[in-house]
Amino acid sequence: MRVLGIDPGYAIVGYGIIETSENNKVIDYGVIETPKEDPLPIRLQHIDEALRVIFETYRPEEVAIEELFYFKNQKTVIQVAQARGVIVLASQKYCGRTFEYTPIQIKQALTGNGHAEKRQMQYMVKNILGLKDIPRPDDAADALAVAICHGQINPRLNFNMM
Amino acid sequence: MRVLGIDPGYAIVGYGIIETSENNKVIDYGVIETPKEDPLPIRLQHIDEALRVIFETYRPEEVAIEELFYFKNQKTVIQVAQARGVIVLASQKYCGRTFEYTPIQIKQALTGNGHAEKRQMQYMVKNILGLKDIPRPDDAADALAVAICHGQINPRLNFNMM
Repeated sequence: MRVLGIDPGYAIVGYGIIETSENNKVIDYGVIETPKEDPLPIRLQHIDEALRVIFETYRPEEVAIEELFYFKNQKTVIQVAQARGVIVLASQKYCGRTFEYTPIQIKQALTGNGHAEKRQMQYMVKNILGLKDIPRPDDAADALAVAICHGQINPRLNFNMM
Repeated sequence: MRVLGIDPGYAIVGYGIIETSENNKVIDYGVIETPKEDPLPIRLQHIDEALRVIFETYRPEEVAIEELFYFKNQKTVIQVAQARGVIVLASQKYCGRTFEYTPIQIKQALTGNGHAEKRQMQYMVKNILGLKDIPRPDDAADALAVAICHGQINPRLNFNMM
């Protein structure tokens, strides 16, 4: 099963594609960045266009998207949530099978600890996916973690944790 | 100039279309409602599809969208902001000329008081647009208020306030 994991953001969106039935093979990962100087409509369109290309290129069968945790800064939460709306819509339009996981669920799935630290999460992403190095940037590693969480939580995906 | 005003929401999105050069003629107004029982991706797609039809039907030349004010309830702000991201993207894709106004700007434009009450705003919407009654539901009246604000703030639209 080909799974696309997404770490939502406004300035930077992480994505990671894995094939769960082939020993958790990593197909690709990376980030979509939106220029700070562009206005909101242009940045949202940039995210939508880049996601369309990712969906057309890799044709994921299911999509796992991290839920927003609550921020202290309301301006930030509004910006990220607006981008996340565009991301969820793209997933619905271009794939149709969208799953959502909270940060605690993702940490729990990868480390057994819902409050694991970032460093530990990145170490687990590297190990579970058999990579030589921790994926960079952080947002790409976070996106791969969401994809792993989806595989780990759903036995039908034949995901192998080690 | 044909202006589409939008009052963003998750369960209910208000819209109102006016023609500023024809004595502020109201072309249409109404709401998009998303069923509470549907999951997020379906509700966002519903909003996107309904907006596409509105853009194709009325072909607005410019779009005015209310900015989010800060909520006490973080869950609500995330839901509404996600929907607003979809709305701004639709405006960008289907029209390309998007303008944003804060609630204070809208109240100021219609009543001269940035903290005007809802009742006063609705009265002004009715009067400025020469309607017999206050438009219902409230979200549609709010959307018409955003369109009026856009006309009032931009002299190039030849909007006539009375």
